[in-house]
Amino acid sequence: MDQDSSQRKLPPSQNRSVDADRLWQDLMALGTITDPGRPYTRRCFTHRFVEGRRWLANRFSEAGLAVRLDTGANMIGRMQGRDPSLPALLIGSHSDTVPSGGRFDGMLGVLAGLEVIRMLRDRGIVPRHPIEIVDFLGEEPSDYGLSCIGSRAMSGLLNDPMLDFKNASGETLAAAMARMGAEPSALAGARRSDIAAYLELHIEQGRVLESGGTNVGLVTGIVGIARIEIEFTGAADHAGTTPFHLRRDTLIAASEIVTAVRRIGESYAVRNEGYFIATTGCLDIEPNASNVVPARARLVVEGRAENGSWLSEFTDELDALSRSAAKAANVERSAFRLISLSEPAPCDARVHRHLVAAAAELELSTADMASGAGHDAAFMAQIAPAAMVFVPSRDGRSHCPEEWTAAEDCSNGAALLFEALLRIDADDAFLQCARPVTGARGVTS
Amino acid sequence: MDQDSSQRKLPPSQNRSVDADRLWQDLMALGTITDPGRPYTRRCFTHRFVEGRRWLANRFSEAGLAVRLDTGANMIGRMQGRDPSLPALLIGSHSDTVPSGGRFDGMLGVLAGLEVIRMLRDRGIVPRHPIEIVDFLGEEPSDYGLSCIGSRAMSGLLNDPMLDFKNASGETLAAAMARMGAEPSALAGARRSDIAAYLELHIEQGRVLESGGTNVGLVTGIVGIARIEIEFTGAADHAGTTPFHLRRDTLIAASEIVTAVRRIGESYAVRNEGYFIATTGCLDIEPNASNVVPARARLVVEGRAENGSWLSEFTDELDALSRSAAKAANVERSAFRLISLSEPAPCDARVHRHLVAAAAELELSTADMASGAGHDAAFMAQIAPAAMVFVPSRDGRSHCPEEWTAAEDCSNGAALLFEALLRIDADDAFLQCARPVTGARGVTS
Repeated sequence: MDQDSSQRKLPPSQNRSVDADRLWQDLMALGTITDPGRPYTRRCFTHRFVEGRRWLANRFSEAGLAVRLDTGANMIGRMQGRDPSLPALLIGSHSDTVPSGGRFDGMLGVLAGLEVIRMLRDRGIVPRHPIEIVDFLGEEPSDYGLSCIGSRAMSGLLNDPMLDFKNASGETLAAAMARMGAEPSALAGARRSDIAAYLELHIEQGRVLESGGTNVGLVTGIVGIARIEIEFTGAADHAGTTPFHLRRDTLIAASEIVTAVRRIGESYAVRNEGYFIATTGCLDIEPNASNVVPARARLVVEGRAENGSWLSEFTDELDALSRSAAKAANVERSAFRLISLSEPAPCDARVHRHLVAAAAELELSTADMASGAGHDAAFMAQIAPAAMVFVPSRDGRSHCPEEWTAAEDCSNGAALLFEALLRIDADDAFLQCARPVTGARGVTS
Repeated sequence: MDQDSSQRKLPPSQNRSVDADRLWQDLMALGTITDPGRPYTRRCFTHRFVEGRRWLANRFSEAGLAVRLDTGANMIGRMQGRDPSLPALLIGSHSDTVPSGGRFDGMLGVLAGLEVIRMLRDRGIVPRHPIEIVDFLGEEPSDYGLSCIGSRAMSGLLNDPMLDFKNASGETLAAAMARMGAEPSALAGARRSDIAAYLELHIEQGRVLESGGTNVGLVTGIVGIARIEIEFTGAADHAGTTPFHLRRDTLIAASEIVTAVRRIGESYAVRNEGYFIATTGCLDIEPNASNVVPARARLVVEGRAENGSWLSEFTDELDALSRSAAKAANVERSAFRLISLSEPAPCDARVHRHLVAAAAELELSTADMASGAGHDAAFMAQIAPAAMVFVPSRDGRSHCPEEWTAAEDCSNGAALLFEALLRIDADDAFLQCARPVTGARGVTS
């Protein structure tokens, strides 16, 4: 039983009364700030991105927030609370997009945070805690080979080698961040130890909520991701003149892996011990000619799990399997590389409980679920109790212009943030900074 | 029992005494005529190709051959026989190469023919039949989307739509042929009905002879080829957020096909009713990103068979299989297209018997085998009794600079052509043009 559920006495109807139109107009307005002829593109480190932030900063200011950039170029709007000694409650996400992306991924989380502030103002509520709305810098994979740049900085996980990453033109990430207003030499200033809780609303980017007719997903943890590159080398023999027993056909071995990844993935998924998913997303063969036996095949396999030990287990299983597939196809397994590994980030159980109670009061149907995608929340979970809320994505589409979440779903998400924020604000367990959740070391989106 | 085997009384030692050095020097010399820095490249329709032919025409003339181009721009060197009323015995192959090809594929057949002429001259032998050595135009796949251009012309199978094929610059095949000395408006003049037999020596382009330690392969037939394009369409879902049961993963279906093609191929191959081989040589997926479920997969599958009905059976089996693979993976089979089909071309049994007897006399070990690759001989088999001889390819390599056939193997091939030619010349069954072999309608190399 949540200690605060009896303290808050606002009737459900009042909590639910997000100004859905206002939130929707904001989403659509921010969406118009896009590279022309290429909707919806507002890439981090571009003039377009700065234009979007300028618009956003004006909205923050209009809502009475004090707007600043931290030394990692995260844009933060702050509302003072009743007790200046208390750590802050943060609501955040990001305003950058992938190339030809959508209008919801990231933006909804920032604008719903803004809407929560407006709801507080409209109702004359001043929480005990200061409230901050954060637009994290560069959450999407950037041209510098890194994602979640701002949340890495805030959690102290943006290191010097990363700052030296370069884009195709040779510009360092540090220089690009400086263009956005960061102070790369003073990144320690962006690191926070004054956060009582972190909340993030995001579109699901999948079809689980839609297919289940569920209003909101309450995220129990953000998956860890293991990406493994496997390469097979054989011989580019003539497809007409080389009998089967003399072939060294790498596509045979690669197909074996594709099938096995699905089979292993399904066997893990039905264990019912947490979310697991695995995918072979990349496959290239050479010479890729109809009359030549494929001499080289390269795959990139991905496993994502709430349970970190499963990633090791999956990697080990794939290691053994790719050896035997190579042997069976009479080819060489010329590479087996773990190209990236991030550990799972569990969401905070207390914050999650407040979300459950708030959803019940709002009469929203919920599903506990893992986040299969990486998010800024995975980094924030390093330094504060953190949790996420998902709302349905139409057809599960994301990172494309067709990305869509209905206005009602957007306002459900904002209402849930509002209600949960009040509950957390009222919960004495959040009067001090909680011990950071450990275990998550990095996340890839 | 071949009727002529008792008539020919030259001792084996004399037949075997090909001037191996002379043949080898020719091969190496022709190999030096290549695009500089890109050995060995002498593409049809280029200046380099014309330069190679000029060198070749000089060698033909030196050997006493009358050199001409037919209206299909096949270069022909002719030696008159004792009886001007007899149809000709042809030895042919091609002097063009693939880009960055080798020094043997095609060239060996033409230069061994030249060596046979020199052996006849050296020994003062004038056969009854006229002998022609042919360098067919453009046997390798050309920039105009067609292979075996010259042998198609000679067999009457180069039609007007083919002449209209264009290269990337928009030049028609007809115009390109004219540049090589052809008269595209008078192609009927290239069509032959005066050929008593056709012989072609070629490198195996496979490892069967090498792995069996066999001197020569006696080709029983040239495979027909069915090329089938299969395309699956699914959905580019997020690899982290889309559970298995909601996925439409086209790579799962494609891998099923790759595995099945091998399985079906092996089951046909062990029937022992002729040569069969199948390959998946092309596979492309989209978007081919590690964190996105493959939404599109396109394969090109090839079946090659001595037995034409197997190609239909294979195509039907693949049709059913790709439907069920699509259904199982919850994707659409958006295309199933037979993109090319050529029927098998059986070699002539009488010519083959002379090759068997000649090899026995030369004490060469032989293996009857199908040609898994297409050759000019497949077109010549339309209009004359035709057969081919293969010699070993080191490591089975071909169409690459490493392509290699030992000098001794080259001279074995030339000796066998010489010996078989004399036997055919002495065989009264070849005094008139034989009925063309039917059934072969086209061949792709």
